[in-house]
Amino acid sequence: MKTRYINQLQPGDSLADQFVLTEKTMAHKKDGNNYLNLVLSDRTGSIKAVIWDNVDQIAAKTKSGQVVVVKGTVGSYRGNLQMVVKEMSTAPASDIDPAAFLPKTERDVDQMFERLKKLSESLQKEYLKDLFNAFWSDKTFVAQFKRAPAAKKMHHAYIGGLLEHTLSMAVLADKISEHYSGIDRDLLISGALLHDIGKLREYTYDVVIDYSDEGRLVNHIVIGIQMIEDKIKTISTFPEETAMLLKHMVISHHGSRELGSPEPPKTIEAVMLNCIDEMDSRVQAIREFMSKEDPGEMWTSYHRLLERHFYRGRTGK
Amino acid sequence: MKTRYINQLQPGDSLADQFVLTEKTMAHKKDGNNYLNLVLSDRTGSIKAVIWDNVDQIAAKTKSGQVVVVKGTVGSYRGNLQMVVKEMSTAPASDIDPAAFLPKTERDVDQMFERLKKLSESLQKEYLKDLFNAFWSDKTFVAQFKRAPAAKKMHHAYIGGLLEHTLSMAVLADKISEHYSGIDRDLLISGALLHDIGKLREYTYDVVIDYSDEGRLVNHIVIGIQMIEDKIKTISTFPEETAMLLKHMVISHHGSRELGSPEPPKTIEAVMLNCIDEMDSRVQAIREFMSKEDPGEMWTSYHRLLERHFYRGRTGK
Amino acid sequence: MKTRYINQLQPGDSLADQFVLTEKTMAHKKDGNNYLNLVLSDRTGSIKAVIWDNVDQIAAKTKSGQVVVVKGTVGSYRGNLQMVVKEMSTAPASDIDPAAFLPKTERDVDQMFERLKKLSESLQKEYLKDLFNAFWSDKTFVAQFKRAPAAKKMHHAYIGGLLEHTLSMAVLADKISEHYSGIDRDLLISGALLHDIGKLREYTYDVVIDYSDEGRLVNHIVIGIQMIEDKIKTISTFPEETAMLLKHMVISHHGSRELGSPEPPKTIEAVMLNCIDEMDSRVQAIREFMSKEDPGEMWTSYHRLLERHFYRGRTGK
Amino acid sequence: MKTRYINQLQPGDSLADQFVLTEKTMAHKKDGNNYLNLVLSDRTGSIKAVIWDNVDQIAAKTKSGQVVVVKGTVGSYRGNLQMVVKEMSTAPASDIDPAAFLPKTERDVDQMFERLKKLSESLQKEYLKDLFNAFWSDKTFVAQFKRAPAAKKMHHAYIGGLLEHTLSMAVLADKISEHYSGIDRDLLISGALLHDIGKLREYTYDVVIDYSDEGRLVNHIVIGIQMIEDKIKTISTFPEETAMLLKHMVISHHGSRELGSPEPPKTIEAVMLNCIDEMDSRVQAIREFMSKEDPGEMWTSYHRLLERHFYRGRTGK
Amino acid sequence: MKTRYINQLQPGDSLADQFVLTEKTMAHKKDGNNYLNLVLSDRTGSIKAVIWDNVDQIAAKTKSGQVVVVKGTVGSYRGNLQMVVKEMSTAPASDIDPAAFLPKTERDVDQMFERLKKLSESLQKEYLKDLFNAFWSDKTFVAQFKRAPAAKKMHHAYIGGLLEHTLSMAVLADKISEHYSGIDRDLLISGALLHDIGKLREYTYDVVIDYSDEGRLVNHIVIGIQMIEDKIKTISTFPEETAMLLKHMVISHHGSRELGSPEPPKTIEAVMLNCIDEMDSRVQAIREFMSKEDPGEMWTSYHRLLERHFYRGRTGK
Amino acid sequence: MKTRYINQLQPGDSLADQFVLTEKTMAHKKDGNNYLNLVLSDRTGSIKAVIWDNVDQIAAKTKSGQVVVVKGTVGSYRGNLQMVVKEMSTAPASDIDPAAFLPKTERDVDQMFERLKKLSESLQKEYLKDLFNAFWSDKTFVAQFKRAPAAKKMHHAYIGGLLEHTLSMAVLADKISEHYSGIDRDLLISGALLHDIGKLREYTYDVVIDYSDEGRLVNHIVIGIQMIEDKIKTISTFPEETAMLLKHMVISHHGSRELGSPEPPKTIEAVMLNCIDEMDSRVQAIREFMSKEDPGEMWTSYHRLLERHFYRGRTGK
Repeated sequence: MKTRYINQLQPGDSLADQFVLTEKTMAHKKDGNNYLNLVLSDRTGSIKAVIWDNVDQIAAKTKSGQVVVVKGTVGSYRGNLQMVVKEMSTAPASDIDPAAFLPKTERDVDQMFERLKKLSESLQKEYLKDLFNAFWSDKTFVAQFKRAPAAKKMHHAYIGGLLEHTLSMAVLADKISEHYSGIDRDLLISGALLHDIGKLREYTYDVVIDYSDEGRLVNHIVIGIQMIEDKIKTISTFPEETAMLLKHMVISHHGSRELGSPEPPKTIEAVMLNCIDEMDSRVQAIREFMSKEDPGEMWTSYHRLLERHFYRGRTGK
Repeated sequence: MKTRYINQLQPGDSLADQFVLTEKTMAHKKDGNNYLNLVLSDRTGSIKAVIWDNVDQIAAKTKSGQVVVVKGTVGSYRGNLQMVVKEMSTAPASDIDPAAFLPKTERDVDQMFERLKKLSESLQKEYLKDLFNAFWSDKTFVAQFKRAPAAKKMHHAYIGGLLEHTLSMAVLADKISEHYSGIDRDLLISGALLHDIGKLREYTYDVVIDYSDEGRLVNHIVIGIQMIEDKIKTISTFPEETAMLLKHMVISHHGSRELGSPEPPKTIEAVMLNCIDEMDSRVQAIREFMSKEDPGEMWTSYHRLLERHFYRGRTGK
Repeated sequence: MKTRYINQLQPGDSLADQFVLTEKTMAHKKDGNNYLNLVLSDRTGSIKAVIWDNVDQIAAKTKSGQVVVVKGTVGSYRGNLQMVVKEMSTAPASDIDPAAFLPKTERDVDQMFERLKKLSESLQKEYLKDLFNAFWSDKTFVAQFKRAPAAKKMHHAYIGGLLEHTLSMAVLADKISEHYSGIDRDLLISGALLHDIGKLREYTYDVVIDYSDEGRLVNHIVIGIQMIEDKIKTISTFPEETAMLLKHMVISHHGSRELGSPEPPKTIEAVMLNCIDEMDSRVQAIREFMSKEDPGEMWTSYHRLLERHFYRGRTGK
Repeated sequence: MKTRYINQLQPGDSLADQFVLTEKTMAHKKDGNNYLNLVLSDRTGSIKAVIWDNVDQIAAKTKSGQVVVVKGTVGSYRGNLQMVVKEMSTAPASDIDPAAFLPKTERDVDQMFERLKKLSESLQKEYLKDLFNAFWSDKTFVAQFKRAPAAKKMHHAYIGGLLEHTLSMAVLADKISEHYSGIDRDLLISGALLHDIGKLREYTYDVVIDYSDEGRLVNHIVIGIQMIEDKIKTISTFPEETAMLLKHMVISHHGSRELGSPEPPKTIEAVMLNCIDEMDSRVQAIREFMSKEDPGEMWTSYHRLLERHFYRGRTGK
Repeated sequence: MKTRYINQLQPGDSLADQFVLTEKTMAHKKDGNNYLNLVLSDRTGSIKAVIWDNVDQIAAKTKSGQVVVVKGTVGSYRGNLQMVVKEMSTAPASDIDPAAFLPKTERDVDQMFERLKKLSESLQKEYLKDLFNAFWSDKTFVAQFKRAPAAKKMHHAYIGGLLEHTLSMAVLADKISEHYSGIDRDLLISGALLHDIGKLREYTYDVVIDYSDEGRLVNHIVIGIQMIEDKIKTISTFPEETAMLLKHMVISHHGSRELGSPEPPKTIEAVMLNCIDEMDSRVQAIREFMSKEDPGEMWTSYHRLLERHFYRGRTGK
Repeated sequence: MKTRYINQLQPGDSLADQFVLTEKTMAHKKDGNNYLNLVLSDRTGSIKAVIWDNVDQIAAKTKSGQVVVVKGTVGSYRGNLQMVVKEMSTAPASDIDPAAFLPKTERDVDQMFERLKKLSESLQKEYLKDLFNAFWSDKTFVAQFKRAPAAKKMHHAYIGGLLEHTLSMAVLADKISEHYSGIDRDLLISGALLHDIGKLREYTYDVVIDYSDEGRLVNHIVIGIQMIEDKIKTISTFPEETAMLLKHMVISHHGSRELGSPEPPKTIEAVMLNCIDEMDSRVQAIREFMSKEDPGEMWTSYHRLLERHFYRGRTGK
């Protein structure tokens, strides 16, 4: 069992404890000896580490993404802790508590899920209700849906993040569907609920949030379509046109090919879903980014993906 | 006074009536004689026309954007009416009824304006209320604001279109500001109300919707800033920081340099305003586009700006 | 039954015959009367047409993509024939011979298919052979595979075109897999065989080649994945990793997001498949384009998609 | 010999005269008969034409770019003259006066050339003077240099245009080289003089300005390098470094790969040459464009390449 | 008062002196303790520093952009000096000499300003002379104009840099306006003089050159327009068209939306101003870059913004 | 002579030995003293180094790209060796063994060259055989051709790499020319053989692979054209059209302007050459990249140029 967390470490500590092996890279070719650069993490943070000895054996029997037991000593350089690792091996599965390694939403997962279910029950078409029943009664699905993150880094990158993002989107979709006449509320809300479900398999999130092999090779949009197709096949009354339109919501929700959608939105509801997704993920990404910055400064540091500094205001926010 | 409208013309008609001279181009250099290609329009549509005789005199004494009195005959080619014009001169101002030439919003302009005013009265900061009072009590401003279109072609391209778009944005901004915690509702709604006011001067919309010289040379974003600055100067209590933030909402509302904003959105409220503007203008553009298409076809024709066909559904919409 | 073809029509002819209604657009708003612009086609070419009378009734009871019986007269403008249509109604299904309406590969379809089958039998892994057996023994699949085009316009845009393109790719893949060491020939050839099968449903090609609703809303790459997934599910021994890698070949074969692939190629075989596809479709597109040009000129006219003129050589080709 | 010019033609005329066959395209596949679309031109303008009869024979024995003798009649459609051609054959070389077919600079060619020579004599390095002497004493070169255009359409697209553009650039380079300290005036002026000489072979300009085969296949930048290399080889004292730097001026003068330069400018003089070229070609392009527009309008029509309207001012220019 | 400069520091020094706190970033979340990363600077250079103790108190009472009094010791890593700071507090305003902290133009500011004034007096239109008189008699404006830099980093990034750049541009504009016929010299030179005046407020340059809040939120182009508008309002005779054209010079001087201009240049003078600005800023940027490089190497290091190495020549420059 | 290699160095070693001075950068302006950052390399790898003393003298008498004799001591930081250099001077040419400094193809250079020659002898046109004879009998050319690399970093970046890449391309071109009918095999194979010969002069590869001055200023495509032109001039029978087409193969082989080709491919053979080049360089780049990665991980690290991770498979490759 894990006993000490990264945010408690001090230079000079010796320790033998569990961490997630987030990255492992062989350094090579600069001189005659190899060594390993590691990143170790738990739910409180991460720390760089290095292994000088027994490099080949250790490299062969551990793999990034695993929980490892690490023996080593903590040093420091310019305020960043660094570990020199002497021994490292995979932790026995029975001895791992996933909660030790990943951050979690601060909101109540079951409450969020209940609100989501209610929204799905408010739909008018019976076959759509049947579709969501099929999802909600699939225990593996629900268990994953309650845990999956919405991203690796950018926004909602924590256990329960996907649920949080999905709920926020669905509630917004509901509000906005009242604002415009002639909107197919059933389609818009169903699209909001299902748009990112491929992320259940695109990421791994047992002890570290990372892309799965399937995520990198097949992409969450395509995975999501397969998941929807599987459930729709169980509902004989499901109209073919609705199936296509629902898949189209998922396929097009990134808005353009450049952003990863094989087709751009071609219905008003798909256009709206894309706008809502962009707003919700962007607002949340900026809020998370701002919350980590020096509260004494009016401007945040540079946000690499969004390519700008953000203004926090003269009196802070 | 105008007596017959373009949608009533028949091949073979002779007529002498008022039209807006929307385009006038000298055709030249292919042979020894010049001639004029025209587009004439009124609120029911537009028609191509050509002038063979007295070309130089007519070109010199008329100008695109004017209401002209036209004598000529109507012909036809592949279903498109065409006019051969014999005489053309500017119509006397006293004889022009603008309502004959431009389409108009179907909604009640005064009612929309009252809803907008109420929203501005719901703001919390006194200096913001003062700012909007300064606008609402400026009669020239209000008169233009009730007439201006929101675009030349793409969406809300009719008298009252800007007001309609602004109201829709402000109502959405109000709804969405409740959805997220920590949003400065005053700033978001003020931004929605003011984001496009530069369009009052960017377009001409007396008898035809077109860019003004100022619009083409100075751009509606920069014009809008000048209009806001002028009013803010009259309010001694207006905080400098709020002035900057409000201008930033206007400057950044297109989202990126490529789309015409000198700076990208750098506050959460500016990011949200950009998303809301994109959604509202896109949804409305598609609805207007769909409404003009063959109701018997499931797919619209190709939308050149959005670069796709839209799906109208098996049972239509 | 169809009796006369478009390439036999002469100005002045009256006729009552079958055509595909390739396009039907309501023209509107320019004057008070609607009319219909049509494109009619058969396997020898296409002709523009127009309907002036009974527009609304005819628009309501016919649909683009159908075979229609047309009564009208042939006129001419600058060398292009044009038809004025008096009556138009859908042709009874029993009376339609699809071969009258679509161009066809000049090669022997069954021979091509046999060569393809042999290539699939040359694979080493049993579960891949099983997969292709599952496809080859699915009669609906095979029937469609023998008819589908590879594109709407650009290259192989005729009945049997997809088969021709697939065979060419697979043979090239075979040759090239010998050239480089360490290539997984099974994976490369399987990818070549399956990369475009989503086009069986992306296009309609009964009497006209056009996008299907599913093609426009769901995209051939995603459709193809569903088709592969359906077959793989029937083979219990199919390894999960191979399934992912095979899907990855299909997903990434356009090379980049901008070109429609949700993920770029991430294995050597996927990189090769993308290069082979680009070469085969480009070479064939240029050959088809060159074959239609004025043989007396050294340069072709401007190719809009490839954005250049091509050189045919001083002595022609 | 040519007797009548395009700007003198009237509808109804019959004629038998010389024109340049600027374009010849076989129209095909819409019906069973081919026909030819032509563009005919002389120095006063161009006219569309069509051939209905003996299409294949005429297509085989004439070629775009030639002067042809044409028999036909002139018609008209919407103010554009059109010719229906009955017979067309190549004109005997002895009977062709090139001056009949191409527009020419309004400035004195020999005077311009003398100013250019003087600028080259003002250089300090002997080997550079030798290089220009080699060019100026090459009679074929000088003859072509005095005739070549600077572009096909955009700017200086007339006989003598390249000389005019080159002189303007060299004079500007001279002025600007005084403005900044530390500039290698010899290099900058030599670069200005030579930057576009590849256009001597990139274009044909005997009777029509068009790309040559070499121009389309090898590009004027690469052709120019070969021409410079040929002359430099004759000067044994020419320093290798100067040769590279001079070639670099030519290679990089478009500024970036996207604009056709294999390398971007990597010396200050190359950066300046690129700026001067951009200014001179752009200013001249806009002046030529403005001069053809309706003098009664304040805004020009839309400039397709520069993607904007230009403002001519309230009082004209 | 400041006593020692960064270029005099040695490893091992203890010191208590003034520096500009150019950057201050809270490092966090890697372990339980925060610390501060700083960049300190004066006019001779900059140095990285770190604070381990009393982090929260120091972070709260100092702000980037201020002059601070720092106590600490100097260390070294790979040739870069580094400071470990024990105490840091804001310096009393009365004790600060701005000249200690910022580099300055090497040219005579008053002389440059006089040349600029003379150029403005050479204009022909009285109302333009009045406009510049209004600027030159505004003491705050002149004081800022003599100090402002032209950029944060790229070129002329020192006190007086904007004046130097403006003068260079105006002199070039004068020369080039003689070269082309039909140029409005008044407009071109006025545009050159005013194009960047928004930078007076876009940057702070008391003790460090950085963006101001207004600069980041409102952009120097928009600020400049407000400054011009304010002065024009005081001149009753100023023609409306000239006001628009002058604003257009400023708005469009970056050349395209991608580069930050809300409108592209739409007059010949605006096109020329854009070319001149590009040449002057690019030439100066490269000269400053080259002057800092190893004089023994023929090629500079890689220029990140211009994305290339520059060639300095075999014999240097 | 060189005695010890970089892959044999240990922290604590003192040494006096030869290395290539791959990079030399003056660090400056942070404090009062300059120092030098170096990269030293030999065929086994590279090592960073620093010089603190006698900086200006050493900088003046050595130059990057030379072999230098270095005296210093080896230290270490985080697994990377670093050298502190006390003395550094250029090595006497007589004392340098190039084989000590550059990696080499693992294949037999003479055998590869013989295969290449045979391919050139299989061409049909005599003048093409003459052309290749002219190259093969040019001893300087052949010597360079057997040594040149195909790139600085991306692929085949070792002695003999260009020959290896050229042979692979030519063999592929041969195979593929059989696959398509109507291909000019002579042209395609000649293009493959010559497409990159400009790299003989674009790179230096005596003791370090880097761009030559000519490579950076004139570009390998343009250099290659000059080399071909020089040989063609010696063959009086060489047809002008073939010369243009062959140059076009070289000029267009990068496929588009953005990728450095002044013209895009305009013949089928040029299109094919571009595809083959892209496949061969990409496949080889990925293979070389994969071979250096941690064999225990399924995914490679991030490939910066190709912008993705590559999948190596569950069982490795």
